Amino acid sequence: MRKIGVVGIGHVGATVAHIIVSQGLADALVLVDKQPDKLASEVLDFRDAASLLPHHVTVTAGEPKDLADADVVISALGHIELIQPGGDRFTELRANTPEVQQVGRDLKAAGFNGVLIVISNPVDVITGLYQQATGLPTQQVFGTGTYLDTARLKRALGEALAIDPRSVAGYMLGEHGDSQFAAWSTVKALGQTATDLAANYHLDLDQVAEDARVGGFTVFAGKKYTNFAIAHAAVSLAQLVLSDARNEAIVSHYDARFAGYISTPAVIGRGGIVADFALALTAAEQAALKQSADAIAAKTAEYL
Amino acid sequence: MRKIGVVGIGHVGATVAHIIVSQGLADALVLVDKQPDKLASEVLDFRDAASLLPHHVTVTAGEPKDLADADVVISALGHIELIQPGGDRFTELRANTPEVQQVGRDLKAAGFNGVLIVISNPVDVITGLYQQATGLPTQQVFGTGTYLDTARLKRALGEALAIDPRSVAGYMLGEHGDSQFAAWSTVKALGQTATDLAANYHLDLDQVAEDARVGGFTVFAGKKYTNFAIAHAAVSLAQLVLSDARNEAIVSHYDARFAGYISTPAVIGRGGIVADFALALTAAEQAALKQSADAIAAKTAEYL
Amino acid sequence: MRKIGVVGIGHVGATVAHIIVSQGLADALVLVDKQPDKLASEVLDFRDAASLLPHHVTVTAGEPKDLADADVVISALGHIELIQPGGDRFTELRANTPEVQQVGRDLKAAGFNGVLIVISNPVDVITGLYQQATGLPTQQVFGTGTYLDTARLKRALGEALAIDPRSVAGYMLGEHGDSQFAAWSTVKALGQTATDLAANYHLDLDQVAEDARVGGFTVFAGKKYTNFAIAHAAVSLAQLVLSDARNEAIVSHYDARFAGYISTPAVIGRGGIVADFALALTAAEQAALKQSADAIAAKTAEYL
Amino acid sequence: MRKIGVVGIGHVGATVAHIIVSQGLADALVLVDKQPDKLASEVLDFRDAASLLPHHVTVTAGEPKDLADADVVISALGHIELIQPGGDRFTELRANTPEVQQVGRDLKAAGFNGVLIVISNPVDVITGLYQQATGLPTQQVFGTGTYLDTARLKRALGEALAIDPRSVAGYMLGEHGDSQFAAWSTVKALGQTATDLAANYHLDLDQVAEDARVGGFTVFAGKKYTNFAIAHAAVSLAQLVLSDARNEAIVSHYDARFAGYISTPAVIGRGGIVADFALALTAAEQAALKQSADAIAAKTAEYL
Repeated sequence: MRKIGVVGIGHVGATVAHIIVSQGLADALVLVDKQPDKLASEVLDFRDAASLLPHHVTVTAGEPKDLADADVVISALGHIELIQPGGDRFTELRANTPEVQQVGRDLKAAGFNGVLIVISNPVDVITGLYQQATGLPTQQVFGTGTYLDTARLKRALGEALAIDPRSVAGYMLGEHGDSQFAAWSTVKALGQTATDLAANYHLDLDQVAEDARVGGFTVFAGKKYTNFAIAHAAVSLAQLVLSDARNEAIVSHYDARFAGYISTPAVIGRGGIVADFALALTAAEQAALKQSADAIAAKTAEYL
Repeated sequence: MRKIGVVGIGHVGATVAHIIVSQGLADALVLVDKQPDKLASEVLDFRDAASLLPHHVTVTAGEPKDLADADVVISALGHIELIQPGGDRFTELRANTPEVQQVGRDLKAAGFNGVLIVISNPVDVITGLYQQATGLPTQQVFGTGTYLDTARLKRALGEALAIDPRSVAGYMLGEHGDSQFAAWSTVKALGQTATDLAANYHLDLDQVAEDARVGGFTVFAGKKYTNFAIAHAAVSLAQLVLSDARNEAIVSHYDARFAGYISTPAVIGRGGIVADFALALTAAEQAALKQSADAIAAKTAEYL
Repeated sequence: MRKIGVVGIGHVGATVAHIIVSQGLADALVLVDKQPDKLASEVLDFRDAASLLPHHVTVTAGEPKDLADADVVISALGHIELIQPGGDRFTELRANTPEVQQVGRDLKAAGFNGVLIVISNPVDVITGLYQQATGLPTQQVFGTGTYLDTARLKRALGEALAIDPRSVAGYMLGEHGDSQFAAWSTVKALGQTATDLAANYHLDLDQVAEDARVGGFTVFAGKKYTNFAIAHAAVSLAQLVLSDARNEAIVSHYDARFAGYISTPAVIGRGGIVADFALALTAAEQAALKQSADAIAAKTAEYL
Repeated sequence: MRKIGVVGIGHVGATVAHIIVSQGLADALVLVDKQPDKLASEVLDFRDAASLLPHHVTVTAGEPKDLADADVVISALGHIELIQPGGDRFTELRANTPEVQQVGRDLKAAGFNGVLIVISNPVDVITGLYQQATGLPTQQVFGTGTYLDTARLKRALGEALAIDPRSVAGYMLGEHGDSQFAAWSTVKALGQTATDLAANYHLDLDQVAEDARVGGFTVFAGKKYTNFAIAHAAVSLAQLVLSDARNEAIVSHYDARFAGYISTPAVIGRGGIVADFALALTAAEQAALKQSADAIAAKTAEYL
């Protein structure tokens, strides 16, 4: 039996739950939110859909204690209303911190020993807070990080090349925030490196990277939140865990070099981060990664 | 190639689009909304998700003229903000009417000749307005009607019997509104009629029907809109059209007896309503259906 | 984590496995067969497909002892080569019996305590043999029985009415064999009973029932086995168990009245048969069900 | 509406059809085979499954003339019975040639103007014969080629690295036959090149490549045919065409340099091969590709 918990049923959490329900990705889905009326409405809306769906998913409203035996818990809580257009995800840090610590302690008290996937922002810091509060091994707690920014890079480059974004390889590394960067040495499409693509297809790589980096705020500008792509990012990571896929994916995971969470690719499976590896980055990229780790630390000190 | 248009990208329209995108149900999906910034954000959010999905769907922002060759158009426009808790879907009628008539005329001008599926409320009246404005044969224009209320009846009865709602047969008939009613003569579960179920499982059938009838407002109360179940209702109907499934489903379709749109079951396929049939209702149910048709007419006169 | 075992990887077992792999319905899939070379080839063929699929399923060749912690085991072993065109599924009984008893004992020795779904023929007898050999509660061991014949009835009636077979309700009851019968009192389509359908659509109901009853041999005649429909029947039942769907389905399950396995509808969930109920059959149908139970007993005595 | 035709309903063609039916990937599916009894059985088996599936697909037995308006036709005809263990796919050439030419002429006579995807072996030669017989532009006719061998390379390397094969990038190039080769310069996994992987994980790359190259015969050895992986390869290519995905995939397509069909990656979309590009191969790889093209030509001359 597959059991998933989602904590925080706002726009993102509800969309995460919807993907799981509509595709039958779990057998039991427990939704947790501090607003009981909103939560009850979401659960009822899913139950109303049940006779129209090809799979059965038992959806219930619950509390962290009901997640003791969950395979995966996804944290989608947040305060998107605090974000300003073009702003910084750290704006949410003070508001999210006590809630995250409470949920983390509650999961620990419940004896949760699965994998915790964090969407809540600023995700690199929040994921670290969750790891501390739950006391889980670092491998079992990771964040969506630049998985979504990487999807945006593939979207931007795919559109520039008139190809499906699934045909673009490569990564946005570092903070899920301002200091992230496109690791062009990892990018490949149409059998060519980024440098060759830029030359052959007349691309402005800086513009492509900037498009990816600010993509979240572009979406935010028009609808005041983002939900579809980030929800698919989280659910696809949950699927890798549930099925022990051992798939390479870029997530915010603990990096001993920086004594903190930051996004580089890792291998995801049943235990969370089941293998780690170092990219052969250029010296400039290594410096940018270090700089991004420093930026996370500095902003954490400033906001927290 | 399967091409679907969605008009009105609010909570419901965006969820309709999301189901189509996430499950690869169309090859081309055109989204239409009068707020260009919001629309651009939704399209971008879907495109950001594209590298995370197993299917390719080309999602674009467009106008009714881009729907000329669509197989199916789904109207999800509305003014949910006008609805009061426990209120009446007719509250939206005056606001929705001119928009619906404009979209209908635009589709006609574009030469759209597919099937138009209407979610916009009050759905029985709006569907009629669309049919008039588009000039399409009545078979090609139908509304979700009590398809969703029927799903709620199955949910309520399924929970009372501790069985999957897919194992409950039967219909809520009439208006997608106050005057709808459970046609108990059509209900069957666990090999038993509604009367036998009530006796054997100590059910209060009136309570079950009321639960279904007000289900929309129960969901609305907690989140100020409903989206998941209604979106799945619309999409599953669109799938029946696209695949020429010839599946029985309850939708709001034109009934010559009442000279208007009202929900009874019909056979849905490539041409929309491809076959119609009469249920063997009890005299009381036939009277209730007539009464519901009268209620639609009376409220239309009052609000329009 | 969802774990499924399939025992017997012939045409049917391989197709069962294929559906599970291609749709990501299990996290771990263990295939068991007495021919190691054939088994290794099937496993390799699935693994070769893995990079082309959107889900990860870990497929391995194993033995009954590897199924100790399986949620569901599906028995698809058989000797289809013994069947004659238009023949009787009992022809397989003598050949299948010792293999079934061995697998049952092996599952018992392994401590398997999940749900065992039996396809192997003659399914009503074989399911009973499995229940005895495993020592599992009768609720945890059931057979596909007339679930497939019922699907054939829906196909035949659906084609006669030019509607999707999913829009036909009703059951083939009794033996998955010659003595099965269409329980017309349970049939409904287009809002009408079988009697009304026959009158209104000029149907020969006997011909429709016969078409369903001999459907297996019609398919067999052209390709010397049947696999697609029966595999989907088994997998859809497995999904009901895995997700604790509590869905009504017709399966061969233990009936104390007949001291044996025979097909009538039941409620399927995590524990297998989670609720049973009696249909309101006509006296003639009740007699036919009794006659079918007698036929199973008589043929069992003759062949075993 | 999506319409697909499959020509040749043996093990592979039936599995292709099954994937399409079970996942609802087409609205209309026309199956063509020269054995009418076998064909009728397969169609009936799919129809028997229809009430158990969440999608509707209209499956019919037909002839090439019924494929006039198909979006995609997949050729799966063949004479697998002529293949010897460890043998050569050219063994089938003489038997397949007249059938392929007839089907090609019939498609031309029908006015088919969609995309033809060829599985039939030896696929590089047969695809060329189809292009000539249909008179379609070379872009609209391509073969599965080393798409499957590439999947086998990913499987072999993924297993060696204990990661999901979807996390391995790279290509088997050239003939879908003996002269194919792993283009190691295109291979990447865990952020490393093939050379680094070999060093860091102690891999025997020659062994991995050989495993991929002979994978088809390994599967064949145990079950006397291969079907699952090749069918998924063909269907996933068909999906790229239907959805105009513009996805990079390796297929056997016309290469003017060699005046024939051979596998290198291309961009697949609605028109078939919608863009082509050159890999930055090493000199040795370029020589191997030339050698493989020569081998195809030489064997074609020998067998045809």
